[in-house]
Amino acid sequence: MLTLYYAPYSCALASHLALEHSGGAYVARKVDFSKQEQRSPDYLKINPKGRVPALITERGVLTETPAILAYIAQRFPAAKLAPLDDAWLFAQMQSFNNYLASTVHVAHAHRYRGYRWSDDPSAIESMRRKVPETMRACFEQIEQEFLQGPFVLGERYSVCDMYLFTITQWLEGDQVDVNLFPRVAAHRRWMLENQIVQKVLRAQ
Amino acid sequence: MLTLYYAPYSCALASHLALEHSGGAYVARKVDFSKQEQRSPDYLKINPKGRVPALITERGVLTETPAILAYIAQRFPAAKLAPLDDAWLFAQMQSFNNYLASTVHVAHAHRYRGYRWSDDPSAIESMRRKVPETMRACFEQIEQEFLQGPFVLGERYSVCDMYLFTITQWLEGDQVDVNLFPRVAAHRRWMLENQIVQKVLRAQ
Repeated sequence: MLTLYYAPYSCALASHLALEHSGGAYVARKVDFSKQEQRSPDYLKINPKGRVPALITERGVLTETPAILAYIAQRFPAAKLAPLDDAWLFAQMQSFNNYLASTVHVAHAHRYRGYRWSDDPSAIESMRRKVPETMRACFEQIEQEFLQGPFVLGERYSVCDMYLFTITQWLEGDQVDVNLFPRVAAHRRWMLENQIVQKVLRAQ
Repeated sequence: MLTLYYAPYSCALASHLALEHSGGAYVARKVDFSKQEQRSPDYLKINPKGRVPALITERGVLTETPAILAYIAQRFPAAKLAPLDDAWLFAQMQSFNNYLASTVHVAHAHRYRGYRWSDDPSAIESMRRKVPETMRACFEQIEQEFLQGPFVLGERYSVCDMYLFTITQWLEGDQVDVNLFPRVAAHRRWMLENQIVQKVLRAQ
């Protein structure tokens, strides 16, 4: 049995969606960021990074969204969540997920987590102001270069779609109009109509 | 034949090391950042992100270091660059590489690339000042939690070691003394004595 630690509205939604799609048995446990539970001694024993997601398996704890997504896809191959039989397509899947993790999520993080990179309140405020511009630039690249359509990898639905949807959900809060990106907007509508997605959003 | 686009001192060193260890045929092409070649129309046709590394394969271009490292390991399985036969160990490898890409490399990038996240020169300067502290915190976690020793994944040498070495090489410039972290320092010495590593460093 797998256990996912998540927080609502966080990137852990992608892993939660992948688990629900996998057909595997799991439980999802909420970490309450409003109570700083991610910094509690009990949680730091689970994940010393003090972040979500963390996936507890029978062999240990796994962190980092792209690693968790590939693992769920490999552990439940019948669910066909990633192109496991073709190293090139698998690499394309990984490349997209890593772009979201290392560039897009990082751009977004400068809205609320600027303190990670500066101690100066006015600097942190200046980072927050630039987030709409950086997130818009990221989604321009996603729209024009990376989202093959209708799904990220073309006709094949995959964990990439769950991760893209997770970050697309942040755009409104980042003051970026998703309708600037018609293909991303259509992708988001498709995801919102998916019953598995709806079930996970209700559960969170 | 694979072609790697790299810049000296960049994270592309990890992919270059993996290619050299793979035994596969490849050429390495330098992108001259001092001439802004990464922003040239020719290079943007190869990699619209305007960054390195980019790996050209017979099926297309692959970007993002963790994706490239896993791909090289899967393409050349005889080189045993990653635990390909065990989804859990493969995920641990990926988790480490993703931590380097999304957290450690990002912390380092605030030294020279603060303009990505703020337009305010004093904010950019304040980001630069914090880099020694954030990099030290990252390497404390690597030393205490992630580097199993002697290699990242324990007894098994892997692409994780090439990536860790790449980023460890940045510490001096980031004003962090590697000797604060005895296991990381020993790991770096081992890598510097490795003939394949020496060959790649000379070539770059």
